Amino acid sequence: MRSSAPETASREEAARRFALSARTTDSTVTPNHRFEQWFAQKRRRAGFVVTRIPFSRMSGWGFDPDTGALTHRSGRFFSVEGLRVQPDGDSPPWEQPVLVQREIGILGFVVRELAGVLHFLVQAKAEPGNPGAVRISPTVQATRSNYTGVHNGRSIPYVEYFLAPPPEQVLLDNLQSERSAWFLRKRNRHLVVESTADIPSGGDFCWLTLGQLRRLMSRDHLLSMETCSVLACLPERAPEEGEAGHRQSRFRAALLKSLDEQAASRHRLPEVISRLTAVKALHEVGQRTVPLSEVAGWQRLDEEISRPDGRYFAVVGAEVTARSREVAHWTQPLLAPVPGGLSALFTRSIDGVLHVLLEARVEAGSLDVAEFRPTVQCTPSNHEGRPGWPRPHFLDAALAMPGDRVRCEVRMCEEGARFLDAENRYLVIDVGEDFPLDVPPAFTWVTVAQVQRLLEHSYYLNMQARTLIALLHALH
Amino acid sequence: MRSSAPETASREEAARRFALSARTTDSTVTPNHRFEQWFAQKRRRAGFVVTRIPFSRMSGWGFDPDTGALTHRSGRFFSVEGLRVQPDGDSPPWEQPVLVQREIGILGFVVRELAGVLHFLVQAKAEPGNPGAVRISPTVQATRSNYTGVHNGRSIPYVEYFLAPPPEQVLLDNLQSERSAWFLRKRNRHLVVESTADIPSGGDFCWLTLGQLRRLMSRDHLLSMETCSVLACLPERAPEEGEAGHRQSRFRAALLKSLDEQAASRHRLPEVISRLTAVKALHEVGQRTVPLSEVAGWQRLDEEISRPDGRYFAVVGAEVTARSREVAHWTQPLLAPVPGGLSALFTRSIDGVLHVLLEARVEAGSLDVAEFRPTVQCTPSNHEGRPGWPRPHFLDAALAMPGDRVRCEVRMCEEGARFLDAENRYLVIDVGEDFPLDVPPAFTWVTVAQVQRLLEHSYYLNMQARTLIALLHALH
Repeated sequence: MRSSAPETASREEAARRFALSARTTDSTVTPNHRFEQWFAQKRRRAGFVVTRIPFSRMSGWGFDPDTGALTHRSGRFFSVEGLRVQPDGDSPPWEQPVLVQREIGILGFVVRELAGVLHFLVQAKAEPGNPGAVRISPTVQATRSNYTGVHNGRSIPYVEYFLAPPPEQVLLDNLQSERSAWFLRKRNRHLVVESTADIPSGGDFCWLTLGQLRRLMSRDHLLSMETCSVLACLPERAPEEGEAGHRQSRFRAALLKSLDEQAASRHRLPEVISRLTAVKALHEVGQRTVPLSEVAGWQRLDEEISRPDGRYFAVVGAEVTARSREVAHWTQPLLAPVPGGLSALFTRSIDGVLHVLLEARVEAGSLDVAEFRPTVQCTPSNHEGRPGWPRPHFLDAALAMPGDRVRCEVRMCEEGARFLDAENRYLVIDVGEDFPLDVPPAFTWVTVAQVQRLLEHSYYLNMQARTLIALLHALH
Repeated sequence: MRSSAPETASREEAARRFALSARTTDSTVTPNHRFEQWFAQKRRRAGFVVTRIPFSRMSGWGFDPDTGALTHRSGRFFSVEGLRVQPDGDSPPWEQPVLVQREIGILGFVVRELAGVLHFLVQAKAEPGNPGAVRISPTVQATRSNYTGVHNGRSIPYVEYFLAPPPEQVLLDNLQSERSAWFLRKRNRHLVVESTADIPSGGDFCWLTLGQLRRLMSRDHLLSMETCSVLACLPERAPEEGEAGHRQSRFRAALLKSLDEQAASRHRLPEVISRLTAVKALHEVGQRTVPLSEVAGWQRLDEEISRPDGRYFAVVGAEVTARSREVAHWTQPLLAPVPGGLSALFTRSIDGVLHVLLEARVEAGSLDVAEFRPTVQCTPSNHEGRPGWPRPHFLDAALAMPGDRVRCEVRMCEEGARFLDAENRYLVIDVGEDFPLDVPPAFTWVTVAQVQRLLEHSYYLNMQARTLIALLHALH
């Protein structure tokens, strides 16, 4: 039998290898300049033309006569259904369309030690809903429908590495939530699997270190949110003597200190969990699928399902013509949110240890009522022109923050296989030590080491929070 | 501001206080002999008469004309609905009635340091479905309907301690699942809150140490499963030099060693989680509520909803007359499982460290597809007389195990407010070092320290597994 080393030693070892990869910001395997050429070429060659069409012209998709749900005739992929949300015993319910996809997707990176450093096999992946098309994506991003051939297309490269990996080669494996404002209880399996044998790359795939990936995080529309979400879950550790380098700003020193599990935190981890639990118990969200045709406040037109006031999002029919995808031409529904989405993570040093400000918040489609999300997560226009409508906490503070407090600002799009032109602005803002520590009850200051402990488990941080945590790590 | 001590120190401190309470097997606060008198008196005085009645004679309950669901006219409490379960893409779905209760219940103990030792405020609580009526239950066991008065009864004593406890007094707070074979996505908040002020006890409440509670665990029908479930989640630690006492059997030595986080485990904790994740990803259970009147394989008679073959369970109408409950007379549906339920936890020393054998298993109503359950969890008669029907793994091994391998055998009932005469036999069986380490893929050997880490989070171990872990700790 195999008895493993103590837990901490094993986690430390994985964290040490990822930290080495993170410090490697260029690589002989795929030098940065060669990556740029390769990526520019992918951007030129891959692309989609997306045309909005009436639902009646979609092929294989239609409205179920009983439930009104918009479904594919195979019963697979996803469906658009109606959702009634009852946030707690006292508040009125609301209704909205929601994407329902029962299958648990795979977001997986193959990693391999090359020249002594872990490299990630990344994919230049184009999706119809993403302007500019190609994003740096995980090695495999697939649902069972994809790799069992329901998609009726080509097989998924490298998927075999994720179907039954030997345990000792699995560096990360847990479930994390999808975008719960739009998906009902959707989650993805986040996997990082190490290969000890040679793997062919080339084509749409190349090898990058974690340092190279983090270097790219500061650029708009370059990495997919899925890439960020997986990278956020990797084990982290505080740098040892001499590793931290010399560019020691106060912000960076506090960030590195925050990676240390022994650093003083404002709240103990069980208390952080307890605060999320309290929000769950308070709201006990009821979720009922209802006929899509009867969703209150929404209308079904020939070309879209939307609200008369134009808020939130529309579901549209789309015809897609592709150059670099399994199937070269198809139709499908896409969800088109109103533009201007904003997610901001506030950071603040507390006694020299960087803390991030998270909000425990109900989302319509959450598997378990609520998760932690960033300090600010909203689309401001949804809240404008509505007298008496509550203004999101800290939105005005985020918008008024002087530019030198913004440590990172990057634009990214939601997953382009489901969302159309869904661009969001992501901000990491170091709010400074004058910022009040006392915050509304649903908000919690958490160290980065605590975040990493939570990310070893499922459903603590939502997709947007994970994305911002990945961006924060790029500021090491 | 308050900066907390490092995580580990804080958890160690709580574990140390609970360990002291566990070593205190008698107490001047409620001496064992006085507890026995008190409890015998409660048993004599409290009681219910439960009469099965036709559904049509229930008051306030009826079948919804649209969905066929059995509901209370207030819309609260719980309902009985139909559930269609689609275990994966390839298997046929099955249907069954299911209990739906959206509210998150509270299972909470108030604890208080008395004579230098933590004592738990326990309640002698009677429930209609439990033969012999009174069980030692948490201080508060309530849903929002209870304590907001929908129940139309008396207020819930001590509930105020759990509504907004100060964080530093919260020793345990997380969500754990209910019985997922019968409940749809039901979970309870497990809370232990310390009071630093005097609290009146008396009546149906008294103070017991953890050692006294564990002493009582070996007796049939004395503690409620809810009590065991909460106690299982308490922080544990390996005893220090001199604390372990002298009754050092090999089993006990291996058990104590297994509490040590540094003890060698067969699998690392991320691998344990990965094995559960793999089962979730494989099955991706689809759960749809369907009209109760159309549930395939079940029939609605005047007095019960059941299967023609009599397997699994029946939903029955009940008239309850009580002497010691908020409301003295009422009617309600109860779920009556077929008798003979058996849950067995296999333990085995691996290199001197006790491991328990858990199975990652789909249950119909799981919030997230699957949780770990005990080695064996079934009602044998459900599997008899069905040629070709798979026999549960390890059931025959459990039934054939010689008596000297059984470390604990106790009978307990499911929660008597929902279940009628639902007695189960719980067994902790030390299978010995000849027992094979290689087990089917869904089974995993886990140390007790690893179990305790998992129980800091939600939805890893199911109700029956938590109950057995509590019984295992009583064997220290």
